[in-house]
Amino acid sequence: MLGLGPMGRALAAALLAAGYSPTLWNRTPGRAPGLAERGARTAVSAAEAVAASPLVLLCVRDATAARAVLDAAGPALDGRTLVNLTSVSPEEARRNADLAAGYGAQVLSAAILSPTPTIGQPRGVIVCSGEEAVFRAHRGDLGALAGTVDHVGTDPGRAAAYDTALLDLFWTTAHGYLHALALARAEGLSAAEFAPYAHGLPRMLPALMDDWARRVDEGRHPGERATVASAAAGLAHVARTARGHGLDTGVLDAALALTERALAAGRGAEGVSALTETADRRDR
Amino acid sequence: MLGLGPMGRALAAALLAAGYSPTLWNRTPGRAPGLAERGARTAVSAAEAVAASPLVLLCVRDATAARAVLDAAGPALDGRTLVNLTSVSPEEARRNADLAAGYGAQVLSAAILSPTPTIGQPRGVIVCSGEEAVFRAHRGDLGALAGTVDHVGTDPGRAAAYDTALLDLFWTTAHGYLHALALARAEGLSAAEFAPYAHGLPRMLPALMDDWARRVDEGRHPGERATVASAAAGLAHVARTARGHGLDTGVLDAALALTERALAAGRGAEGVSALTETADRRDR
Ligand SMILES: NC(=O)c1ccc[n+]([C@@H]2O[C@H](COP(=O)([O-])OP(=O)(O)OC[C@H]3O[C@@H](n4cnc5c(N)ncnc54)[C@H](OP(=O)(O)O)[C@@H]3O)[C@@H](O)[C@H]2O)c1
Ligand SMILES: NC(=O)c1ccc[n+]([C@@H]2O[C@H](COP(=O)([O-])OP(=O)(O)OC[C@H]3O[C@@H](n4cnc5c(N)ncnc54)[C@H](OP(=O)(O)O)[C@@H]3O)[C@@H](O)[C@H]2O)c1
Repeated sequence: MLGLGPMGRALAAALLAAGYSPTLWNRTPGRAPGLAERGARTAVSAAEAVAASPLVLLCVRDATAARAVLDAAGPALDGRTLVNLTSVSPEEARRNADLAAGYGAQVLSAAILSPTPTIGQPRGVIVCSGEEAVFRAHRGDLGALAGTVDHVGTDPGRAAAYDTALLDLFWTTAHGYLHALALARAEGLSAAEFAPYAHGLPRMLPALMDDWARRVDEGRHPGERATVASAAAGLAHVARTARGHGLDTGVLDAALALTERALAAGRGAEGVSALTETADRRDR
Repeated sequence: MLGLGPMGRALAAALLAAGYSPTLWNRTPGRAPGLAERGARTAVSAAEAVAASPLVLLCVRDATAARAVLDAAGPALDGRTLVNLTSVSPEEARRNADLAAGYGAQVLSAAILSPTPTIGQPRGVIVCSGEEAVFRAHRGDLGALAGTVDHVGTDPGRAAAYDTALLDLFWTTAHGYLHALALARAEGLSAAEFAPYAHGLPRMLPALMDDWARRVDEGRHPGERATVASAAAGLAHVARTARGHGLDTGVLDAALALTERALAAGRGAEGVSALTETADRRDR
């Protein structure tokens, strides 16, 4: 297990819980004392850790960090299977896979689609891309990390494509919620008073997501339930109120600008899902 | 029922379903032929509609529209109870309430916190602010519109405060999802392939929301599960990938800029909920 940030530690703990004997390495030593106590071995270099096991998991901050670790492990990767769980772009995933293959490793380019508390739990989700035979050989091992482990394609960039789109959704939503808490507090509500009403969002999202996905794939956006024009009016007063309280309004202003571009394109009476087409600025 | 956009029509349909005989009015006539067939009366002016019933519901696009309708109804409002369900800012809610009170109406300043398909259903949510006696007198009538009808305070701006913070969350999330669909499609995934993984978000949100709310109220943001620095790295590669596909990146860039301000303030190792404090630009 290479990388012992919050996610690497969660993965290592899940391996231990499933009866594996992982060898751990992290650039900065001493990051996971609790895991050593539970029987994990510690390596002093990435190469030493890689040499210790046939299956190598890598989970560090970004593509640059992953590249640095792969280069440090170098020839020790020969004959190993590398599962790269670092969150990267599809292009970076392809480059990192080539790099590891160049050192003689078999590679799965993977992505973790759920947060640390889900690791080792049925609700954890991991997607893998790469050769199907390699996936099949290690599907059981990966099952120790997450209840759902899907193979989503042979292109090494495929898992990252899911991951990137999902992170887009996740971080935008996280910013929306954390900003809403700032706004609620500026209005004199505590976060605890506001949070119960926020729970309405996850209740309505599944149906909305499926519905909008269908409309986007079909390219039809009827406005019988909520329109682009109504969204613009709502966003405008939210942004105005937030600005009045001295809050950062960058995200709201950008969302409003996109909505107003849809309005200017004559889409005001269409359903909100039309914004997916407005978000794509390429000429088609 | 004043206003027959998607939401006004849903409210009128719920009233009919519950056995009421509403009188409907909309600025542009002929917007709800199906409702007339089901027995609703139609008024030719806002004043005529207001004169027809002791309880008046108003649901139009924004504060300006609400003001226009209230001024058109004018003295007809005397002795009526007005429930203003138009989504407005807290300040606008106070102004609109004063205006209607000036015409002699008793006023509840309300907000609908769930989308049109929830209206008349147990999962619909409406919050009301204003005098508690007025709320109690019409709580039963409002129960025809939504399963949850809460009184959240006497200040007419209070319902709007919940609404504004919730719309912040809702529209930011909607933009995140609709943008994620654009990104997935640019990566060669259909919306239908991507949507099932997006369902992971509403599964994880309730626990995350309560946890972040607690941290925000306590002002403590431990980083043991996911840090501001890790969020910045993730957002950066998502924004880069979206830009590479020619997509609009305004929302992502703004979220990244906020995250980088937290980094610059030395909060990289803190939990993501620290961003609520960074969103508040006021000196404290
Ligand atoms: N946390 C979550 O809930 C979550 C969920 C899904 C996916 N992920 C993904 O999992 C990956 C790891 O995330 P994380 O939460 O563990 O925290 P992180 O802060 O993104 O990554 C920390 C890890 O990266 C290492 N690292 C950073 N730069 C390095 C470099 N140049 N060379 C070698 N190692 C380097 C750190 O080593 P040092 O200790 O030496 O700094 C540490 O092991 C990320 O790609 C993240 O997006 C995380
Ligand atoms: N749709 C939802 O899911 C939802 C959910 C929660 C809250 N809401 C809130 O409910 C309110 C109504 O929304 P909506 O979905 O029905 O659609 P909307 O497009 O926001 O509002 C349309 C209604 O506003 C009227 N209107 C606009 N400008 C007017 C003016 N200057 N004078 C008089 N009437 C005017 C329209 O009349 P014309 O037909 O003559 O244009 C129509 O009746 C909004 O505040 C919205 O934020 C909606």
